[in-house]
Amino acid sequence: MAVHRLVATAWHNVLATIAPVLTVADGDTVITETLDAGGSDRDGVRRWHGPNPMNGPIAVDGAEPGDALCVEIVRMSPIRATGWTRSVLAPNVVDPQRARDLPPRETATWLIDGDAGTVRLEHSPEGLEHLVLPLAPMIGCFGVAPSLGQAFSTATSANNGGNMDYRGFGPGCRVWLPVFVPGALFFLGDCHAIQGDGEIVGTGVETSFEVEVRLSLDKRRSLEWPRGETADAIFTAGNARPLDQALQHATTEMLDWLMADYGLNATAASHLMGQVVRYEVGNVYDPAYTMICKIEKRWLPKRRGQ
Amino acid sequence: MAVHRLVATAWHNVLATIAPVLTVADGDTVITETLDAGGSDRDGVRRWHGPNPMNGPIAVDGAEPGDALCVEIVRMSPIRATGWTRSVLAPNVVDPQRARDLPPRETATWLIDGDAGTVRLEHSPEGLEHLVLPLAPMIGCFGVAPSLGQAFSTATSANNGGNMDYRGFGPGCRVWLPVFVPGALFFLGDCHAIQGDGEIVGTGVETSFEVEVRLSLDKRRSLEWPRGETADAIFTAGNARPLDQALQHATTEMLDWLMADYGLNATAASHLMGQVVRYEVGNVYDPAYTMICKIEKRWLPKRRGQ
Amino acid sequence: MAVHRLVATAWHNVLATIAPVLTVADGDTVITETLDAGGSDRDGVRRWHGPNPMNGPIAVDGAEPGDALCVEIVRMSPIRATGWTRSVLAPNVVDPQRARDLPPRETATWLIDGDAGTVRLEHSPEGLEHLVLPLAPMIGCFGVAPSLGQAFSTATSANNGGNMDYRGFGPGCRVWLPVFVPGALFFLGDCHAIQGDGEIVGTGVETSFEVEVRLSLDKRRSLEWPRGETADAIFTAGNARPLDQALQHATTEMLDWLMADYGLNATAASHLMGQVVRYEVGNVYDPAYTMICKIEKRWLPKRRGQ
Amino acid sequence: MAVHRLVATAWHNVLATIAPVLTVADGDTVITETLDAGGSDRDGVRRWHGPNPMNGPIAVDGAEPGDALCVEIVRMSPIRATGWTRSVLAPNVVDPQRARDLPPRETATWLIDGDAGTVRLEHSPEGLEHLVLPLAPMIGCFGVAPSLGQAFSTATSANNGGNMDYRGFGPGCRVWLPVFVPGALFFLGDCHAIQGDGEIVGTGVETSFEVEVRLSLDKRRSLEWPRGETADAIFTAGNARPLDQALQHATTEMLDWLMADYGLNATAASHLMGQVVRYEVGNVYDPAYTMICKIEKRWLPKRRGQ
Repeated sequence: MAVHRLVATAWHNVLATIAPVLTVADGDTVITETLDAGGSDRDGVRRWHGPNPMNGPIAVDGAEPGDALCVEIVRMSPIRATGWTRSVLAPNVVDPQRARDLPPRETATWLIDGDAGTVRLEHSPEGLEHLVLPLAPMIGCFGVAPSLGQAFSTATSANNGGNMDYRGFGPGCRVWLPVFVPGALFFLGDCHAIQGDGEIVGTGVETSFEVEVRLSLDKRRSLEWPRGETADAIFTAGNARPLDQALQHATTEMLDWLMADYGLNATAASHLMGQVVRYEVGNVYDPAYTMICKIEKRWLPKRRGQ
Repeated sequence: MAVHRLVATAWHNVLATIAPVLTVADGDTVITETLDAGGSDRDGVRRWHGPNPMNGPIAVDGAEPGDALCVEIVRMSPIRATGWTRSVLAPNVVDPQRARDLPPRETATWLIDGDAGTVRLEHSPEGLEHLVLPLAPMIGCFGVAPSLGQAFSTATSANNGGNMDYRGFGPGCRVWLPVFVPGALFFLGDCHAIQGDGEIVGTGVETSFEVEVRLSLDKRRSLEWPRGETADAIFTAGNARPLDQALQHATTEMLDWLMADYGLNATAASHLMGQVVRYEVGNVYDPAYTMICKIEKRWLPKRRGQ
Repeated sequence: MAVHRLVATAWHNVLATIAPVLTVADGDTVITETLDAGGSDRDGVRRWHGPNPMNGPIAVDGAEPGDALCVEIVRMSPIRATGWTRSVLAPNVVDPQRARDLPPRETATWLIDGDAGTVRLEHSPEGLEHLVLPLAPMIGCFGVAPSLGQAFSTATSANNGGNMDYRGFGPGCRVWLPVFVPGALFFLGDCHAIQGDGEIVGTGVETSFEVEVRLSLDKRRSLEWPRGETADAIFTAGNARPLDQALQHATTEMLDWLMADYGLNATAASHLMGQVVRYEVGNVYDPAYTMICKIEKRWLPKRRGQ
Repeated sequence: MAVHRLVATAWHNVLATIAPVLTVADGDTVITETLDAGGSDRDGVRRWHGPNPMNGPIAVDGAEPGDALCVEIVRMSPIRATGWTRSVLAPNVVDPQRARDLPPRETATWLIDGDAGTVRLEHSPEGLEHLVLPLAPMIGCFGVAPSLGQAFSTATSANNGGNMDYRGFGPGCRVWLPVFVPGALFFLGDCHAIQGDGEIVGTGVETSFEVEVRLSLDKRRSLEWPRGETADAIFTAGNARPLDQALQHATTEMLDWLMADYGLNATAASHLMGQVVRYEVGNVYDPAYTMICKIEKRWLPKRRGQ
């Protein structure tokens, strides 16, 4: 199981069936530096244009449609001392009449101290002088080539992943994505030093990271939507608008997962989900919104075959 | 500050301007036993019909439109050894085509052990034999009389509260509701021994509780939507459909709160919310869905006047 | 079948179970003058406050829950030479970011010539000097007392009718409303001289009318949502948000109607609806939006029992 | 202005930047035979797979990003004596609980008589024996290559057009599409002999047509969403979910059109739209729904420069 270092020299603004820049074996690890959402690199030099330029694609040898690609986010190290955010709530996340009163949306700079593990505004407005946030790295946008020769902007998300902006997609998380094309064709970028739920200012703290991911295959594991696992929980992700529909997708995927892998029938799965499920909100800024359906492992029955 | 014991002999299925059964002073405490969502009491005797029969209303002396009523949930003690749930996910929370495959929705009985602090199915389906959940009491439906002489079914929710089914509305939580009529006219009922996010089977574990609440007034504190506070966080609640709109209401209310009470301008409030906000999902089963917008207190500036 | 003249001296801002001001027999006609949406009468004198003050309620002798109340809109005569509109698109009907650029919402006066049958702006902005619209009267808000003791603001709509703002609710239209309380308790008001689909500036041309309606009962005709009929078509109305859900309600009601009264099974009804149905949009401004599902009579099979 | 006959030998299931099979001059006409939604040709032979195989792309010489491509639908002649539909309402267009009761979705055959101009079921279920519908041809799916190298399934729609399934897209209609890539790259297919609003059974009467379109350029005419014109009206199309958002897009595009081409300011445009606009519903079956915003020409001021 090799470790590859991918140095990107061109980037992509779509997730699509594009010739891979790297092919790895099932189980290999890839280390790569990402640009921020606007295309700037570790030195703040603009290398590509937005939205969300992606490194990749990386092909995984042996991946076939109908498999699942497991992406283990091993490590995310910030490699720039600054990040940026939009300064005002997006007009679509407040009441329509209230949106009219918001000030213009500008850009703010944040200082990232990787050693101290902190993130804070360079120029704090009055009342936020105290605000020192913990570094909480996450990958905003990652995914695989979609089905049918489709190509989706990295500004949105779908069943192949994409710009989900869920703060849970950080180190220690494993994510399974449905494979639609040979090699799977994995892309990643748009990393955040921290981000609240919903990405409601339209950004997290956008910066460059060195990311280490391990890519492996679950052969013939059919998924409709991305699934994930942390030390404590399993979860599914639905991407759609309105949030109601994203929630339907995530809930259905969890139902299917519990029935397929945990030996529960629909009633048993419903009992479990009804009393212990947690929903978390990814992006509510993009064309497609993201809803997470999560269950803590302590409530799960033993997984089949384990 | 007196303690009142309210023994209900009739119940209401609407939140409305109805003659109060009890009038208390600002700061008084009320202890009362609630029926479950279907109208059964501590002995399992059906005393009233659904949906969600309410105790009350309780008038608070001196409450005027434009004030906020603070409801402190002091204690919730289960008073029946059983509760019930629906047995299958609601058709509106799964993909439409998937809804067709779900089994019929029946009723299941759960055993509640108040001393042990546990909740579990009376008859566990295969795979859930291990499942012993913690008792996690919450008030599913509570609120005040709405504006304009309106009367809302206890099956739904609005800016006056109602059937929000947010699991955070448990002991230790304080909730502020906008007052629309003299006396505020507070109602409560529909308590759950535990409930997952979304109330996605259409119920939590529905049972009877003895509830102790302290009712006090914040004079001339104008709210658009319910607000709440726990030991660690403040939050707002938006009730609407789709969830996107509930999220807009909750987000706008949090913005207004930060600007009015924490001395932040719209930009500073946006910076804070953008990077630390958490959304939690209340009911996604009722006519109106509920979205919670939450911020941990550790990120807040000092509150004005404190 | 008597003709009653109802002279209102008080008005209501909710549809609710309120003591009737008039009781009529099944099949009687009522003639009454309505205030405009803001509460002004035929002389422009403000007699009541908004939203949408209602005349009524009118009880229909013998109406029982489970019946349908048939409202035949016989005649609508404008009784004031002016009406008014809001001057700018509502922020919720345009893209959120575009809402920020709209000018402030003011009020404009329109001239209504009942004899000529025309409606035009008193002061035409540049480019609209030519605009002379036809008088196209409609009742913006009408309905019956809702179930369960509920009371709904006349700013919104539900299964009992309310502020649907559908331009099809004009002379020659018959509307069936589900009866929830003895006597049905019918309310009406908020008439418009003309209105585009969606009521997207938040108003039609709001003015006072003399309205003549005939009220009759269809005993034991169970409806979930309002139904209507014109010379050429039958239609159903769904009221909810988002429009997707209003469309679901209206579509389901049409399916049920075709199956119950026209002898079609679900497949036959689907074939018919799939190829001939028309949707029309009522209000998209209020808390609940309105979608109409319509079928021209020429496509319908013979109605059972006719 | 030449007339080209395009005989397709391969088809596409995405709208994308693909090498053109034909390049035409500004103003040229193209005649081509389309497959039905499932890929069958004039002889009922399956030539390609679904969803909605497209002829094309056709490049228009001189088309550049920022232009508009005008598609004039000159003629649509049915070339097969049969078409097909799904037999039952789609589960997403009825109330979720009602969806559970619908019968299984099968396929039905319809007879198309091009000479008589009629469409009817081959085997009429009871009650529909009388049903002879008029031939009302429309193009279900057409559009141009999207921006940014994106590629969208022909099962959905976006600002580049796609599977809008609006019954107004028939002979006599002109449609403008925003051009995102050199040559515009126009695709078409999925024609219907008739279809109700919403495509609520998931299909119109799907069959093969010979279609004649004239393609011309409006240089430097910047659009956000498709626009159209018939003999009597102008209209815009918004594609998104929920319908509320599709309506926002279409309404905003109409506002922009009236301001740019008809010399109205935002207030004047609002006055006009508020009282005369009509909404029509395209597809409510696909991932993206389609809403049409329409104004009859008789209400419009003189167009600038005309």
